[in-house]
Amino acid sequence: MSSSDRGSTVSRRRLLGTGAKATVLGLALLGVAAAPPRGTGDLALVVERASGTVQIVDTTARQVVSRVAGLGDLSHATAVFSRDARHAFVFGRDGGLSKIDLLAGEVVARVVQAGNSIGGAISDDGTIVAVGNYAPGGVKLFATGSLAPLADIPALTAGGAMRSKVVGLVSAPGRRFVVALYDAGEIWLIDCADPAAPLVRKYPGIGRLPYDGNITSDGRFYIAGLFGEDGLALLDLWNPDAGVRRILDGYGRGEEPLPVYKMPHLAGWGRAGGLLLVPAVGRHEVLVIDTAQWREVKRIPVRGQPVFIVVRPDGRQAWVNFALPDSGTVQVIDMLTLAPMRDLQPGKAVLHMEFSPRGEQMWVSARDSGKVVVYDSRTFAILAELPSQSPSGIFMAARAHTMGR
Amino acid sequence: MSSSDRGSTVSRRRLLGTGAKATVLGLALLGVAAAPPRGTGDLALVVERASGTVQIVDTTARQVVSRVAGLGDLSHATAVFSRDARHAFVFGRDGGLSKIDLLAGEVVARVVQAGNSIGGAISDDGTIVAVGNYAPGGVKLFATGSLAPLADIPALTAGGAMRSKVVGLVSAPGRRFVVALYDAGEIWLIDCADPAAPLVRKYPGIGRLPYDGNITSDGRFYIAGLFGEDGLALLDLWNPDAGVRRILDGYGRGEEPLPVYKMPHLAGWGRAGGLLLVPAVGRHEVLVIDTAQWREVKRIPVRGQPVFIVVRPDGRQAWVNFALPDSGTVQVIDMLTLAPMRDLQPGKAVLHMEFSPRGEQMWVSARDSGKVVVYDSRTFAILAELPSQSPSGIFMAARAHTMGR
Repeated sequence: MSSSDRGSTVSRRRLLGTGAKATVLGLALLGVAAAPPRGTGDLALVVERASGTVQIVDTTARQVVSRVAGLGDLSHATAVFSRDARHAFVFGRDGGLSKIDLLAGEVVARVVQAGNSIGGAISDDGTIVAVGNYAPGGVKLFATGSLAPLADIPALTAGGAMRSKVVGLVSAPGRRFVVALYDAGEIWLIDCADPAAPLVRKYPGIGRLPYDGNITSDGRFYIAGLFGEDGLALLDLWNPDAGVRRILDGYGRGEEPLPVYKMPHLAGWGRAGGLLLVPAVGRHEVLVIDTAQWREVKRIPVRGQPVFIVVRPDGRQAWVNFALPDSGTVQVIDMLTLAPMRDLQPGKAVLHMEFSPRGEQMWVSARDSGKVVVYDSRTFAILAELPSQSPSGIFMAARAHTMGR
Repeated sequence: MSSSDRGSTVSRRRLLGTGAKATVLGLALLGVAAAPPRGTGDLALVVERASGTVQIVDTTARQVVSRVAGLGDLSHATAVFSRDARHAFVFGRDGGLSKIDLLAGEVVARVVQAGNSIGGAISDDGTIVAVGNYAPGGVKLFATGSLAPLADIPALTAGGAMRSKVVGLVSAPGRRFVVALYDAGEIWLIDCADPAAPLVRKYPGIGRLPYDGNITSDGRFYIAGLFGEDGLALLDLWNPDAGVRRILDGYGRGEEPLPVYKMPHLAGWGRAGGLLLVPAVGRHEVLVIDTAQWREVKRIPVRGQPVFIVVRPDGRQAWVNFALPDSGTVQVIDMLTLAPMRDLQPGKAVLHMEFSPRGEQMWVSARDSGKVVVYDSRTFAILAELPSQSPSGIFMAARAHTMGR
């Protein structure tokens, strides 16, 4: 075991204060990794965007375990997890890709692989981490073990006239990734059977300015939200020859949209009982889509412009946060009545929400209140508040086992 | 760290042979827990029914990590996992409830809590393990930490005339469990808000001899299969006041059923795109149910009497194993065409099948061939064969994060 393990132990002791066991110090003096053995299934990572650090938290004890520094610019940072749920891969806004050991509480590998990256995903077999980059626009593949580069896929459009930003990078079954090209208006399906020579199938002309994309929890349907027009683009991975089709075309029906204060996300959408909830761009509405017919069945009026819509794993509720000036509120939608049932005020500038894998807890980051708030999702009681430095994204290690991530 | 940790290290070295690192021995001599740190998300447990042992396996390396002995009668044994995916709870046929530390490879707690138990589940918040017992028939609750008893719920029918075997015990959202009473023909919904004084809501008269029950992956619908008549009993937990309704009533339509060689299971059923696949009792058929209308939409002819039907996490395939004389075959059903697409012969007496959480691997136990066979679920190539002593159930630690278990 290495000296860096000792270092992490010290920082863990500092965080835990006097609660740390005496044996920890004793073992550290022997030069032995001192972290007691533990399972990794209930760990989570909280991005502290202002300080370029992440907190590793125990969602059972609802306590901070360690803090990891040196991760660069973490505004808008996201994370995915290795197949064994031991390591997190953090995608920074500065193009940094950092591999973090959740047990040791330290960075074990880091590459600055682009000038500006937006997120990434792990292949279903756990061997490849793919990063989507704004600048230079494209997708890069790395080995999850060493972060050795595997392939570089520039997002060049036909004729090479433009290099597009990419958004909505997800993992799909069969060692594949799907991504949308913001400037080019395309969806790309990337087959990594040979990760050194990925095969790209391109779907051009899907609509103007796809701002985000996501895949249904079964890994079948990829959907890109369009910023440049009212509508969504849908690709059925079970039938990729059928091409991309437009759904919810013109959902604004010619109404003048409101100015958009914050780009919404499809990252936290929810699918429950055949219904999919997505934010209506520039509107105080949540769109409800029937995924059997891919038609709008309802629009739910909400308090502000929705940013994230996160459905509880059992599909019984959806939690929605909002752009300014409503970023201090979270609304809970009852999925049986498809109407808001509860307003919560976790703190100032709610940036992200993450359910525990079975849904009994909801973790909410309130950036400008400097805390993460943990709710009992059934009673709405606050179970814990954890101090955090400008927290943004919250990512549970159980994401390791879900498709798309 | 304890001397039992040292013991487990030795057994791990024996299993791994000369590949174990020299540092392991060095640390063991210092009296320090020597197991290198590792994530627990990719571990799995294989029940070796004849020897009363379980293998702990690494599904990434596809290797055996350790073997744990002293678990009693493991015929028909099942396992669930703690919230942190560190511990497994194994339910033995002899009523033994054993808590296993997957990292140390040892039993850390064990109670013989009944004469004959059939399985169990963990509450959504990870605090309670519930066991369903045949004899004496009922449900017992234990604290997941210490296995301290919390409550005993005898399966007494109205008037106390009968104590029923219970089957199909699952966990439901909101610290609840659901179970079916085989002899009594009832479904019970058990609310454990106060685990020392659980509240039981009873649904009598659901049909004759429910042989198993399961809950949909969203935790909303509980379904019991009936052995004494052709049909299934359905409880919607979003509307428990509506009671239990019968679905697929009389699916045999008066035909004479075949003799049943092995009780089928609902434990591995699958729900894909609104379709639910269940075995037709005593028939060479898989029933396909539309979960929007709860009607039979198709019956798929298969090679034998289905035992388990396991849908791949992406819903694209279902794998089916069979009772004698077809227990050496596994059939793969294409979920787009709802027809068998492939026959596989993993070995003699295929007892169980478990997909990796993202579905890229399928693990199959072939009891009488003494091996576990790992398939690439896309190409059907055999990735590994692991020697195992009469393997039966295979349980991935990622079950910790799924509802029902």
